[in-house]
Amino acid sequence: MAIDIGGTKIAGALVHPDGTMTALTRRPTPRGTDAEGVMAAVTEVVADLADSASWPAAVRCGIGSAGPVDTSRGTVSPVNIGAWRDFPVQERIAAELAARGAPIPTVLAGDGVAMTAAEHWLGAARGHRNALCMVVSTGVGGGLVLNNQLHPGPTGNAGHIGHISVAFDGERCACGGRGCVESLASGTAIARRALDQGWTPGADATAAGVAAAAATGDPIALAAFDRAGRALAAAIAATATLVETDIAVIGGGVAAAGDVLFTPIRRHLAAYATLSFVRELRVVPASLGGHAGLIGAAAAATMLLPSEGATA
Amino acid sequence: MAIDIGGTKIAGALVHPDGTMTALTRRPTPRGTDAEGVMAAVTEVVADLADSASWPAAVRCGIGSAGPVDTSRGTVSPVNIGAWRDFPVQERIAAELAARGAPIPTVLAGDGVAMTAAEHWLGAARGHRNALCMVVSTGVGGGLVLNNQLHPGPTGNAGHIGHISVAFDGERCACGGRGCVESLASGTAIARRALDQGWTPGADATAAGVAAAAATGDPIALAAFDRAGRALAAAIAATATLVETDIAVIGGGVAAAGDVLFTPIRRHLAAYATLSFVRELRVVPASLGGHAGLIGAAAAATMLLPSEGATA
Repeated sequence: MAIDIGGTKIAGALVHPDGTMTALTRRPTPRGTDAEGVMAAVTEVVADLADSASWPAAVRCGIGSAGPVDTSRGTVSPVNIGAWRDFPVQERIAAELAARGAPIPTVLAGDGVAMTAAEHWLGAARGHRNALCMVVSTGVGGGLVLNNQLHPGPTGNAGHIGHISVAFDGERCACGGRGCVESLASGTAIARRALDQGWTPGADATAAGVAAAAATGDPIALAAFDRAGRALAAAIAATATLVETDIAVIGGGVAAAGDVLFTPIRRHLAAYATLSFVRELRVVPASLGGHAGLIGAAAAATMLLPSEGATA
Repeated sequence: MAIDIGGTKIAGALVHPDGTMTALTRRPTPRGTDAEGVMAAVTEVVADLADSASWPAAVRCGIGSAGPVDTSRGTVSPVNIGAWRDFPVQERIAAELAARGAPIPTVLAGDGVAMTAAEHWLGAARGHRNALCMVVSTGVGGGLVLNNQLHPGPTGNAGHIGHISVAFDGERCACGGRGCVESLASGTAIARRALDQGWTPGADATAAGVAAAAATGDPIALAAFDRAGRALAAAIAATATLVETDIAVIGGGVAAAGDVLFTPIRRHLAAYATLSFVRELRVVPASLGGHAGLIGAAAAATMLLPSEGATA
């Protein structure tokens, strides 16, 4: 069973061992309400799933959520869901499951970790024992697979590559840091940089508009993507140098620009991934689309919870 | 059994379960010779150990070496031992052990990983399930403990924090990268920075001389350490943000400057370790001295090799 909680929607599905999903359901994330108002939408998603004929076959439940999360306490404080601060979503969902006859084990994962689990299970990181998976979108997030295992860290936040600094003398990030990858390479940062440098947008002044301009050769737009690509290359190389990841998988809205983003990342990677053991590092697009959140929640549950009947 | 191979000496010891060492022996690392000439010194160290009454009790052998290493192949190419390139040191030592009646399992670890194993076993990282240990000296190296286990990575090079970039627009590092921590915070970098900024050295123009000047309030010397401390703070925070380490242990010659180095690191840490899960991050001095290499080689063997008679 998979539940994916984001700033715009709350989705659920029953995910089968081959990755197919049934009983897909979703609700818009309630706005202008309190914590219980948001929880009510989660409860509706669970109720939809419980109506499925497959419900009794569910053996574990993965909960993916926008972060920050604290998996040591089962709580979430999603930046985009203001009504939830340290909300005990794991305990609340477990109670909803039990009330519907499915007292199965649950696991909570941040969305970056869940996306990583999905790409490692069925996507572009499949078969890689050490991988970094990233989302480059409005923000920049990520997760790690180390030694063939998901590495969420003690509080479930490992892989937060958007808030490592690649410019220690750089500008302030919204997080309070300096020179964070997110402040240099998110869609927001790319659009801001292009506008700052004199780009004249058409109808679309977002990173997608910058990407469209770059694809037609606009030099300011190309330079904005080049700078983002350089920051991402430095961060991807830093991660590989620290933990020996051999692949970086990038998804998210900005990655949808394709070569406009991937070409500069790859061009600059050799300038940062210099040591012998990281020279084979590859950067590839994510291969799962909009369902990565649900597939990832299910994959995280499989990777982080002991199998039933498994021997130690 | 522990063997520690460095650019200036090759040391050996028998290390007991409580960390005490007996049969300590060492040879200067041969210079101006070929690969076999260097190996001859290693063989002498092994022969010394074999003379010890405790020799038959040795159950495993840890080999720590200056890097780069390739633990997947058992080879080393130490920067400071030019005669060894892809030298199969692990296989050669295993043969020496077997020839002396001790066909025990061996493990190879880079010196950063070995130092980390030592500090986690008996030093400042003891009891920490997720730790970064570093050496700040002529160069900058390190290693990681994740989930209470040493994390050497597939080739034994994980934790190479000296060559992550904290200044993606920065100056070239000797490794070919840009803005590497080592190029900003090694002893070499600190001394060069102070001299570049107009510092007038006394008898000692190295980082130790800069530290002595900083301790008496010399503003250029203080600024050189402040800049190094900022680069280290950014890198330590980046590591914690990526893998959720909660402590950074720093040893090595430059760390011997004490507060001159640690005060700026700690002052700047909050500017980079901004996310909730890294705010408790601490930075402390290493607590093992010159024997960390040998203790670490032994600790790495214990952490990386299965125990005899252990059940899965």
